[in-house]
Amino acid sequence: MKIAVDAMGGDNAPEVVVQGAFQAAMEWGVDVTLVGDREAIEAYLPAGGDKASIQVHHCKDVVRMDEAPLKAIRQKKDASVAVAFDLHKKGLVDAVLSAGNSGATLAAAILTLGRIKGIERPALTGILPSDNGRVILIDVGANVDCRPIQLFQFGLMADAFARTTLGMTNPRVGLLSIGEEGGKGNEQVRSAHDLFRESHLNFIGNVEGRDIFTGQVQIVVCDGFVGNVVLKLSEGLAEGLFKMLKEEMLGSLAGKTGLLFNRRIFKKFMKRVDYAEYGGAPILGIKGVGIVCHGGSSVKAIKNAVKMAHDLAMEEIQTKLSQQLK
Amino acid sequence: MKIAVDAMGGDNAPEVVVQGAFQAAMEWGVDVTLVGDREAIEAYLPAGGDKASIQVHHCKDVVRMDEAPLKAIRQKKDASVAVAFDLHKKGLVDAVLSAGNSGATLAAAILTLGRIKGIERPALTGILPSDNGRVILIDVGANVDCRPIQLFQFGLMADAFARTTLGMTNPRVGLLSIGEEGGKGNEQVRSAHDLFRESHLNFIGNVEGRDIFTGQVQIVVCDGFVGNVVLKLSEGLAEGLFKMLKEEMLGSLAGKTGLLFNRRIFKKFMKRVDYAEYGGAPILGIKGVGIVCHGGSSVKAIKNAVKMAHDLAMEEIQTKLSQQLK
Repeated sequence: MKIAVDAMGGDNAPEVVVQGAFQAAMEWGVDVTLVGDREAIEAYLPAGGDKASIQVHHCKDVVRMDEAPLKAIRQKKDASVAVAFDLHKKGLVDAVLSAGNSGATLAAAILTLGRIKGIERPALTGILPSDNGRVILIDVGANVDCRPIQLFQFGLMADAFARTTLGMTNPRVGLLSIGEEGGKGNEQVRSAHDLFRESHLNFIGNVEGRDIFTGQVQIVVCDGFVGNVVLKLSEGLAEGLFKMLKEEMLGSLAGKTGLLFNRRIFKKFMKRVDYAEYGGAPILGIKGVGIVCHGGSSVKAIKNAVKMAHDLAMEEIQTKLSQQLK
Repeated sequence: MKIAVDAMGGDNAPEVVVQGAFQAAMEWGVDVTLVGDREAIEAYLPAGGDKASIQVHHCKDVVRMDEAPLKAIRQKKDASVAVAFDLHKKGLVDAVLSAGNSGATLAAAILTLGRIKGIERPALTGILPSDNGRVILIDVGANVDCRPIQLFQFGLMADAFARTTLGMTNPRVGLLSIGEEGGKGNEQVRSAHDLFRESHLNFIGNVEGRDIFTGQVQIVVCDGFVGNVVLKLSEGLAEGLFKMLKEEMLGSLAGKTGLLFNRRIFKKFMKRVDYAEYGGAPILGIKGVGIVCHGGSSVKAIKNAVKMAHDLAMEEIQTKLSQQLK
């Protein structure tokens, strides 16, 4: 298994990306191919360690964060993210990971690798901590305007993914809406509800915003607009709440004292809610493995995402998805 | 100023509603008319206190939480929420508040009082705490499928509301989307972006989920589907995070000790993020004052919502809205 890492993508690329990939290679022996400007990459490759599992595939172009994704992918054939997916298409690597322009990563993945037969729209899959294990949120930003059948397919893909890769036995699937009854929600959701109800999935009906992280539901289906708002809101709110709490604590002696006792607990807790633990969001529905990482990914997030890419490739997720979809 | 309170609406009605209204009347001298079954209401009216400012308007019917809103309002002319808005229409009260079936409250408000001239769709307005004061989220559930012009009108209404009622001088208005650039988002949001950009509003562009509670933006515009998901997610996440944190703390001696020091701070913090402090969500765009409260509202939430209804009626919000809209 070889994982191509877009070394030039991300707010802190190539430094953070190269270091994260390096750590994954060193700790878990994952074979990594860093794609991008050789000189820039090698400047950040730590000295020492057995580098047998790290290769550099040189290319000179980059898709910037603010570029129009589709246009960039069509025009910049030598951009790192395009080259990485090209290596995947040719069978030279088994998965691709990028923390760069996420629209461009999606476009490159879909245009280069193609869709799994029967899937109308590949989707970006968020894996988040819940009160009771993990919760999958699909779609978190690939498709902003979805038809009901596409929402239904998101549910099918996430179900297959949860079973094969996350080891969930009969994941509870919910449709994100604004009321529990099937008649509640917008037109898109009301129609999708019927498709889910008549399917073989373990469909628990509509779920609301407050249910997402409670653990009652393991797969939350929504369009990419709503999912992206939910994802970013959750990250922002968790950070914001702790900032506020810390401010309150540091404002009094009792608070400061309490903080001393709780520092370790805060750390443990932050680890539980930290997206970096999960690394990245897989693109489900493509003929291959693609992972989209947060632009501001830390070294740890990249490292964990490389591991996830490796695991997905090992699991042959796309083969299993195709089979389940039949 | 007289405030009609739907005494029969809410998960814990009439008990909690009657007590909240009673406290508002006693503490702030707000004139309250409790609408609903006289016997049931009087059973919960606390003894003592000067009850000059509390009246009961008897009616025998109720809209249940799970009823189809429009049908219920059309058929149950004697339901408490319908009667309350009827009193408003006749000029016998100046505002209405209900913690019952929110769809029915909206339907009664719009059908009975009518819309302000020029407003296509009245909207439900969430008022939430942010890092830097308050943030208005509009719409939080009245309209699930919106056209761009309707989103734009939500912004206009919230702007007028923020200026006249919340004392904001030049509120920063943002459009909730999934990327900062104007070209990002779904079709609805991309078109609305142009309307906002060309308006006189203090439009700061698109905002993302993570920006909602940072205080950078004071009015967040979105459709009622997205807004309702955001509202309920925020409530749920804040509660969930604290539950998790508390579990971690109670699991160790250091944690338990720290918790002793921090109990007061936790309380203070919860007060900052507690929706009950804000009481309810005003319906903007109707010819009158209507407040929708959470079904599970506490006594405090009802009390604060009665105060808000009173303030909005004093401010003659609908007159000011009409003027600003011209």
